[in-house]
Amino acid sequence: MPEQSPGSRPTLEAVAARAGVSRATASRVVNGGAGVRQSLADKVREAVEELGYVPNQAARSLVTRQSGAVAVIIAEPEFRIFSDPFFEQQVRGISRELTANDAQLVLLWVEGPGDYDRIARYLAGGHVDGALAFSLHNDDGLPALIRRAKVPTVFGGRPGAGAAAVPYVDCDNRGGARTAVRHLVGLGRERIAHIAGPRDQTSAIDRADGYRDVLFDADPALTAQGDFTEDSGARAMAELLERRPDLDAVFAANDLMAAGALRVLRERGRRVPDQVAVVGFDDMVTVAESAKPSLTTVRQDIEGMGRLMVRLLTRVLSQDGDGRHVGAPASVIMPTELVRRASA
Amino acid sequence: MPEQSPGSRPTLEAVAARAGVSRATASRVVNGGAGVRQSLADKVREAVEELGYVPNQAARSLVTRQSGAVAVIIAEPEFRIFSDPFFEQQVRGISRELTANDAQLVLLWVEGPGDYDRIARYLAGGHVDGALAFSLHNDDGLPALIRRAKVPTVFGGRPGAGAAAVPYVDCDNRGGARTAVRHLVGLGRERIAHIAGPRDQTSAIDRADGYRDVLFDADPALTAQGDFTEDSGARAMAELLERRPDLDAVFAANDLMAAGALRVLRERGRRVPDQVAVVGFDDMVTVAESAKPSLTTVRQDIEGMGRLMVRLLTRVLSQDGDGRHVGAPASVIMPTELVRRASA
Repeated sequence: MPEQSPGSRPTLEAVAARAGVSRATASRVVNGGAGVRQSLADKVREAVEELGYVPNQAARSLVTRQSGAVAVIIAEPEFRIFSDPFFEQQVRGISRELTANDAQLVLLWVEGPGDYDRIARYLAGGHVDGALAFSLHNDDGLPALIRRAKVPTVFGGRPGAGAAAVPYVDCDNRGGARTAVRHLVGLGRERIAHIAGPRDQTSAIDRADGYRDVLFDADPALTAQGDFTEDSGARAMAELLERRPDLDAVFAANDLMAAGALRVLRERGRRVPDQVAVVGFDDMVTVAESAKPSLTTVRQDIEGMGRLMVRLLTRVLSQDGDGRHVGAPASVIMPTELVRRASA
Repeated sequence: MPEQSPGSRPTLEAVAARAGVSRATASRVVNGGAGVRQSLADKVREAVEELGYVPNQAARSLVTRQSGAVAVIIAEPEFRIFSDPFFEQQVRGISRELTANDAQLVLLWVEGPGDYDRIARYLAGGHVDGALAFSLHNDDGLPALIRRAKVPTVFGGRPGAGAAAVPYVDCDNRGGARTAVRHLVGLGRERIAHIAGPRDQTSAIDRADGYRDVLFDADPALTAQGDFTEDSGARAMAELLERRPDLDAVFAANDLMAAGALRVLRERGRRVPDQVAVVGFDDMVTVAESAKPSLTTVRQDIEGMGRLMVRLLTRVLSQDGDGRHVGAPASVIMPTELVRRASA
């Protein structure tokens, strides 16, 4: 799966250069015009595929279709959406990219299982051209609903096992976790604990797998379970100190849990990073920078992932519309990077 | 304008009793059936009007119409919607009431003036049966857009002067402010300052009017301007202390500004409430209860106002649908109440 950085939208010029044809020829092929030799047309299509080029009319198709609107569906209750800065960042990237395409964002969410039928009816009613869906828990009904409504969709985050083969945008959760743990190993830490996220979320599972990739023989007592909230991180930290008072590092599966862990370490008089080094995941800036000490963490480009979801949906829609395939919409895994602050 | 408490939805039985007819007769009139004497039918319609009865089929009309969806449009950028607990509470009440009507909530917001055309196209496209709109600033384009799109709409908060005659739900901003100021007067305070909200928002204007209703001869130097944010409240408080160091009370036009004022009073060593009594407005519980000291404030039922907006829209839709008027949809002004805590 290709790794793309956000904002680097390939141009038609780049496609022409890659295919070794003029811009006019590339344009004719991309816009479905006739009069281009098959061999040249194939080269252009190859270049489109390789570069992930999104033709303008595909972008415009978002608004020339029936509704000009795209649903953003979050399988979380309203109180979480409005209180977790994670969602705000995702929605911000999506909102900007849809606005750039003159497409209307309509936000829907799921308070409970009773909402799925109604949402499916709305989606099936032609009121949106496509959907961007966040299905964070393995047992939520969103992927099934999407399948039923037959509306072109891109997922944010890899959906659980029950999901259909729908393209998604995710960050490299497993690779990012490996980077975090290798950083702690590089600091000379020998008893590295893990505070894991909820077992029903693919991001948490992948981050725990990354921890085990590096520390495949770690004592199971060095892993404690959290649920991505700050309080759960504090509880997990207390458990870990009980079980393994000799631990010298912690990799928490997100920043909020890391903040909870830091709080408990401070209360117990453990110096960070001297005695216990701590690394988080996400780089929620409001959390990581204000942590005491400030939090070393694995950064994912949440806003950029939102923008990429729109670009991917644009490609799905351009295929659906007229049968001209401009490149199979593959899922996109965004790279992560370690952001060093004071805690490790 | 009738004051209604949320949740007290009048029944058909109540309509029949008020009209002095049988339930069957009331039902025939409400459901448009024939065979009821004109004089009785008029009595039933009067009772419907007086009680604000919403017939079931009107509630159902939300879903039997074309889309089954209602747009909630907030004329604020996404970062404010996701960070101000006020919007979360409003959306919560609306979400619950729409769910009870099996109608789909779709949330739209306005990042900038460039968004209005697109939103108007979406609304005019028949993708929603109605809209609930929050237009907080006199100069935003939402009321004009609503007029253009011709979609049945109820406003949250009284729209500014430029708005069409659209029904709205608001709280009694002016009366609530009077209650707050009278409370301070009752405590024996004689130099009561006001921290006003933005001059382009009707709620802020009405609250300042309420302050002046009670203290019509107050020194203008006792009023300072804020913008509903905590920092602006702190700045206004510092200004007021500069101008009138002898002040002994402050009525802030919202809780966030009151929290900023409390911070400055604490920094300057002014004891609250002994030396300076402080009253806010809104009763944002997360703000008012955690303030030091906890904040006496004017409570408005934000969630209940959201629910009422849905009920009002239901009535507008039931009129639009078939020409049978079940009562002109009047705007609703909800009462406020003073919540006493430690600050005054």
